[in-house]
Amino acid sequence: MDVTFLGTSGAVPTTQRNPSAILLRREGERFLFDVGEGTQRQMMRFSTGFDVSTIFLTHLHGDHVLGLPGLLQTLDFNKRTAPLDIYTPAGTSGAVENLLDATGTTPGFRVQVHDAMPGEPIIEHDEYTIRAIKTNHRTRSVGYALAEAERKGRFDRERAEELGVPVGPKFHQLHEGSSVELEDGTVVQPEEVVGDPRPGRRIVYTGDTRPTEPVVSAAANADLLIHDAMFTQDRQQRAQQTAHSTAQEAASVASQADVKRLALTHISSRYATDVKPLKNEAVERFGDSVFLPDDGDTITIPYPESDDK
Amino acid sequence: MDVTFLGTSGAVPTTQRNPSAILLRREGERFLFDVGEGTQRQMMRFSTGFDVSTIFLTHLHGDHVLGLPGLLQTLDFNKRTAPLDIYTPAGTSGAVENLLDATGTTPGFRVQVHDAMPGEPIIEHDEYTIRAIKTNHRTRSVGYALAEAERKGRFDRERAEELGVPVGPKFHQLHEGSSVELEDGTVVQPEEVVGDPRPGRRIVYTGDTRPTEPVVSAAANADLLIHDAMFTQDRQQRAQQTAHSTAQEAASVASQADVKRLALTHISSRYATDVKPLKNEAVERFGDSVFLPDDGDTITIPYPESDDK
Repeated sequence: MDVTFLGTSGAVPTTQRNPSAILLRREGERFLFDVGEGTQRQMMRFSTGFDVSTIFLTHLHGDHVLGLPGLLQTLDFNKRTAPLDIYTPAGTSGAVENLLDATGTTPGFRVQVHDAMPGEPIIEHDEYTIRAIKTNHRTRSVGYALAEAERKGRFDRERAEELGVPVGPKFHQLHEGSSVELEDGTVVQPEEVVGDPRPGRRIVYTGDTRPTEPVVSAAANADLLIHDAMFTQDRQQRAQQTAHSTAQEAASVASQADVKRLALTHISSRYATDVKPLKNEAVERFGDSVFLPDDGDTITIPYPESDDK
Repeated sequence: MDVTFLGTSGAVPTTQRNPSAILLRREGERFLFDVGEGTQRQMMRFSTGFDVSTIFLTHLHGDHVLGLPGLLQTLDFNKRTAPLDIYTPAGTSGAVENLLDATGTTPGFRVQVHDAMPGEPIIEHDEYTIRAIKTNHRTRSVGYALAEAERKGRFDRERAEELGVPVGPKFHQLHEGSSVELEDGTVVQPEEVVGDPRPGRRIVYTGDTRPTEPVVSAAANADLLIHDAMFTQDRQQRAQQTAHSTAQEAASVASQADVKRLALTHISSRYATDVKPLKNEAVERFGDSVFLPDDGDTITIPYPESDDK
């Protein structure tokens, strides 16, 4: 699982940073969170390909959605046929449809826009769920959390062989949680050869928001929290006025949630020449596991036990 | 007067080419023709600044307009107060207003969208006029022509002094076309000291179009013709199907109109790695005054007599 930062600017892009877009790749799937103007070209520049499975919008401000029509038009030029689901904060799906209509975006593949309501999972898959998170950006807005399901414990092949289990289907039965009987009548329990279930990975992306409790809860022990960090703490008042967060505030959320890693994004153009002040204040509050990505940077999220795929 | 190519791609951008946008600067004014997705960032990248006087849209396909909402939102973030006029093919101003509405583009400055009808000038200024040109792109579409007014003939200061005209206001009167009487009663006629009126410069931009007679007429003897040249001649059928032009067809128009210089644009992504075939076939038809700009290239348009400002 990895995350590529396609756009990390605040509302106004800079020569270095495009407006918001984040591509999360997991197994064969590719989730795109927000689609700022120029996202399709960032995908070209960073060679991620266009093969998007699902799109998630955190809110409808221009710097998060204006790349959507062009991306869909390009997917259509590229003869996409697979249907595309777009999730957007509850109450805004009509506005997304208007945006597509007003831009003449009528692709040959099916596009379905869904209201994303915080609470129950909006996507439930055997291996993961995706939920919307209530955020506070003084407009209809949500964040998103992807949580992988627990994986089965590790199968101790050596121990199984010691116990006399023959290589073959019985290995599979044990790993699936069933006991097996050997030829000599011995019964081997799965607990004898299968380790504890291993937690899945979790990633939370806030979109634009003030620091807020639902994000702290959703991000508890997450592997990666990607948080709005538009300003330094000396502009905290400006962050309040515009319903954004400072880097220090993002770090406080990361600290309260005890996440493994924090990525700061939605960087104001005032830090175009130097982002160190943002990073420094976050490191001071949260420690070294702070990342301030440039456009095109990719973070790989290992399994908690990295020796174990 | 100069022209900066902010975006030269066809419908789908490439890593090298952004969708259509052309910035024409003349004296203090800055005219933007088409606003493909990502245009605002191209303006940053090429340091042209955002100070747009007027916007002209050739048609409403996404690759020509999807950068409009973001640009206007950025102008608003930058506290623009000057009103902004947008010209768009007759019958499409409502659609442009819908696009701005659907993208939540409600800037603090006045935006007025005007239908541009081929024929009478849409902008008449002392020093230039701008007209719309009928094009053929199988949608409501126009091109645009900027034509400077004739400038007064050159004032022959040396000859005036020889004739005994005293340095001072009489020079101005003569240059303005009035005769003057000297102290000795001699009358000097303006023709004696002022050369023939000098033609202004003319630039024509087609937007997307098949080769078409109104463009030939409008471009007659123009200083610069910027023409759709999406394909090479071996794809002429594709050009017909999509209502675009081949480079050879663009060169034929340039040749019929006897323009001074031809710039090829709206380059299909199929030539992403090599545009020479496009340029070569245009040179073969029209000669060496063919330019195939990269994004960010600027062409300066000198006055016909370049020793004379």
